[in-house]
Amino acid sequence: MTRAPYLHVRFQPSGSRRRVSADDIVRTLVAEAAAGHLPPGSRLPPVRALEHELGISKNTVQAAYDELCARGVLVSRERDGVFVADGPGRREMARAGAAEAGPPAPKTPPAARLREIPLRQNRPPTGDALRLDMVFVDPDLLPRERIAECFRSVLHVPGLHRFYDAQGYAPLREAIARRLRARGMDVVADDVVTTTGSQQALDAVCRALATRRVACENPVYPYATALFRSLGAELVGLRLDPFEPLPLEEWGRVLAAARPELFYTITSFHNPTGRSCSSHELTGILALASDLDFALLEDDWGSDMLSQGEYRPSLRAFGGRNVLYANSFTKKLLPSLRIGFVAGDERSVPAIIAAKRVATLGNPTLIEAALAELLERGYYDTHLTAMQQALDARYTRCLELLDERMPAGVRWTTPGGGPLLWLEVPRSVDLDALAARLAERQVVVAPTPLAFQGEPHLHGLPLGYAFLDSERLARALEILGAELGRALGSAAAGALA
Amino acid sequence: MTRAPYLHVRFQPSGSRRRVSADDIVRTLVAEAAAGHLPPGSRLPPVRALEHELGISKNTVQAAYDELCARGVLVSRERDGVFVADGPGRREMARAGAAEAGPPAPKTPPAARLREIPLRQNRPPTGDALRLDMVFVDPDLLPRERIAECFRSVLHVPGLHRFYDAQGYAPLREAIARRLRARGMDVVADDVVTTTGSQQALDAVCRALATRRVACENPVYPYATALFRSLGAELVGLRLDPFEPLPLEEWGRVLAAARPELFYTITSFHNPTGRSCSSHELTGILALASDLDFALLEDDWGSDMLSQGEYRPSLRAFGGRNVLYANSFTKKLLPSLRIGFVAGDERSVPAIIAAKRVATLGNPTLIEAALAELLERGYYDTHLTAMQQALDARYTRCLELLDERMPAGVRWTTPGGGPLLWLEVPRSVDLDALAARLAERQVVVAPTPLAFQGEPHLHGLPLGYAFLDSERLARALEILGAELGRALGSAAAGALA
Repeated sequence: MTRAPYLHVRFQPSGSRRRVSADDIVRTLVAEAAAGHLPPGSRLPPVRALEHELGISKNTVQAAYDELCARGVLVSRERDGVFVADGPGRREMARAGAAEAGPPAPKTPPAARLREIPLRQNRPPTGDALRLDMVFVDPDLLPRERIAECFRSVLHVPGLHRFYDAQGYAPLREAIARRLRARGMDVVADDVVTTTGSQQALDAVCRALATRRVACENPVYPYATALFRSLGAELVGLRLDPFEPLPLEEWGRVLAAARPELFYTITSFHNPTGRSCSSHELTGILALASDLDFALLEDDWGSDMLSQGEYRPSLRAFGGRNVLYANSFTKKLLPSLRIGFVAGDERSVPAIIAAKRVATLGNPTLIEAALAELLERGYYDTHLTAMQQALDARYTRCLELLDERMPAGVRWTTPGGGPLLWLEVPRSVDLDALAARLAERQVVVAPTPLAFQGEPHLHGLPLGYAFLDSERLARALEILGAELGRALGSAAAGALA
Repeated sequence: MTRAPYLHVRFQPSGSRRRVSADDIVRTLVAEAAAGHLPPGSRLPPVRALEHELGISKNTVQAAYDELCARGVLVSRERDGVFVADGPGRREMARAGAAEAGPPAPKTPPAARLREIPLRQNRPPTGDALRLDMVFVDPDLLPRERIAECFRSVLHVPGLHRFYDAQGYAPLREAIARRLRARGMDVVADDVVTTTGSQQALDAVCRALATRRVACENPVYPYATALFRSLGAELVGLRLDPFEPLPLEEWGRVLAAARPELFYTITSFHNPTGRSCSSHELTGILALASDLDFALLEDDWGSDMLSQGEYRPSLRAFGGRNVLYANSFTKKLLPSLRIGFVAGDERSVPAIIAAKRVATLGNPTLIEAALAELLERGYYDTHLTAMQQALDARYTRCLELLDERMPAGVRWTTPGGGPLLWLEVPRSVDLDALAARLAERQVVVAPTPLAFQGEPHLHGLPLGYAFLDSERLARALEILGAELGRALGSAAAGALA
């Protein structure tokens, strides 16, 4: 397919003429050569390429090239093309004023000055390590065959995949809205904007904010705060202790002082603590928003991973259409599908679409169509039912194992759903040293200092229980318990010494 | 699947105990009811849900609920569940200090204050209108069946679609690097980051910039400037006239004064003018970058749409690995695939990946795998060869038709590739009025005031010739010529009057 590169030369018709003439080509190339713009030995555009580009006849181009060869500016080599003369032809160029030395080599531009956004990189699972740091569900529990079937089906629909809707594929938005209405939320298809995971939902909302001052729980999902910061947002942290009621009075004082535009909140299965708000706490958050005039972006990532198809109440259900609600299918279906969404209302949706459009123009239709098909056929609900039985068993087993294996002084949250809980350990345990020792024994945990703003007021780690089967989970927690016991023992010994 | 919603109540074990006891449940619910947090008639969590969440036995929960029913705080309704008492049970709550009136209704939070990014929305083609405003290729020329075949093939690969690589699917990055090397660019797979269209490539680079001061041509692709502005970038416009050589001296003065970090440039098939830089102009841009210390982001969107498989020289090929190079498969394959990429080097790639990760975490693997398959099988090259014949014919025909149909005083660029050219018309023509008259005759053109920074120094519109077949293109250009003639005639008449 590809041929040797050639120089690109711009030709313009002279005077008021519309097409380039042979004379224009000769004049331009002589001038370019004289100015030293045509390195000797470099290839000129093939006749057919100029013919096509300039919309002129092959003969016109050939006549110009013939003349330039005769003048010694160009040389023609059988089958290879036409080249800038290297030998005697240089004389004409020199006469026309060109320096004898060839043109300088192209300069190297500076490297871009980029700054790396500080983030822990999600390492894909490798080898046989026991991953307690994964918020993903065990891939063996995911309906790969059903998804493949839906892809095959939508590939047959003619014309479906030509263009894309910046808001998202309409039948998928309809299916999402229907699901949310069944959970007490007032949402129609026009309120839904699909996104690449829920991450792009956060991105689109933040970049559309009139003023980027964003409150969020402390700790919170570190990719959210990294995202907001990367967009220049000023963050307001609201202290959260997963073992205590929300300190709503304290939050009220902080919010009244900082006056954020938006509160980004994970109300159920909070990442990284696994905490869920009580209904009363949700009402309290709505009252704060109303009194202190900030908007709400609720991230409900852990829903659909709850026991027995139940669901937790949401700000969107309690507080109405002003609440922006984000969720995704990443955790409950194949992570690699990368489909999320945000639900707004008729005032917010146009700005969110514009923000999404400017970031990616639109997302792949085919994936959205396949997911719509999966929902439409009821496969997703069937999958959730089957998966939840497995996840419930893992969660129950995890609590039993923690009871059995954790040394005294270690506490944990009981989320009852989602993929993770928070394990709080005594301050005497060095978390990084613990993680390093565990890694030696093939158990992966990930302390999350980046989830905190300022000095962490908790001392522990998130524990994912949805990724490992019960047997591997038991092995991992046994090793974790032993290493925690050893760390506490040596800390106690150190304190005694 | 879904059941009636119930209140979510948070229970914590008392003292140093690890599990919630029946007594904890009773105590918590009495206190919550007393504080007015349990609206009468609302549903309590089902026994099995609490059993699961708290990791306690069903009997513990049942014992607590029985006690609360006996006290009149709760009532149990056969098959429906357990509810907050509405009648006599309120007495206990009143005794405990609750107000007789129920709790206040949840407050409505304020709507988010969002600002809409100003953009012309790409309207998908509808009906039978003759679209001269489309930068897309005619969907009939796209290899839908081949793409479907590749999807079917990759759906068989086990384990492929579980996770995603934030940098992009490795075999696709390898295939892209191979193609770029064949065009004289020094690129390896590790240099490539895949993106959602080339739009996300621009997004990732801009958000990773240490200082967001970006130079770009004026006019330029308006989604790029809208994107950069939405990220708070300061823009520096460099005047470009598609009928003239680049004013590199003027650019040098502007750049020396403004000192941007980055120059975003479309060196070939410039959008919206169709202009391509000569090899000499590329060398001049590299010299400016080197002298004035700014980095380069080259957007090569129009490549692969060039006559006969030829390609234009690029800054990346001339200037080396410091040049950031963006491109996409959107225009040459199904637009709805949304796959683009940016090539950097070992210094820039980590920051670009971090910026992509924070925006979307990663993109759908399946689409990238299907595209890798398409490249691997040689289908893409076969498709390009076939498509280019059709596009070349349309381009040639378009130039002929313009010659025939355009009134005197109208000029156009001759890009020789890509999907559009620039039609420059006399200043006396009112472009919006022209677009409105054409729309009445079912011809769609789109003046691009948003492509300019400040007052436009050109007076015309981009014309897409790749979307309509020759017959429809002829009809559209005939009508355009007639309406332009009429506009010029009446302008002349107005001048005479």
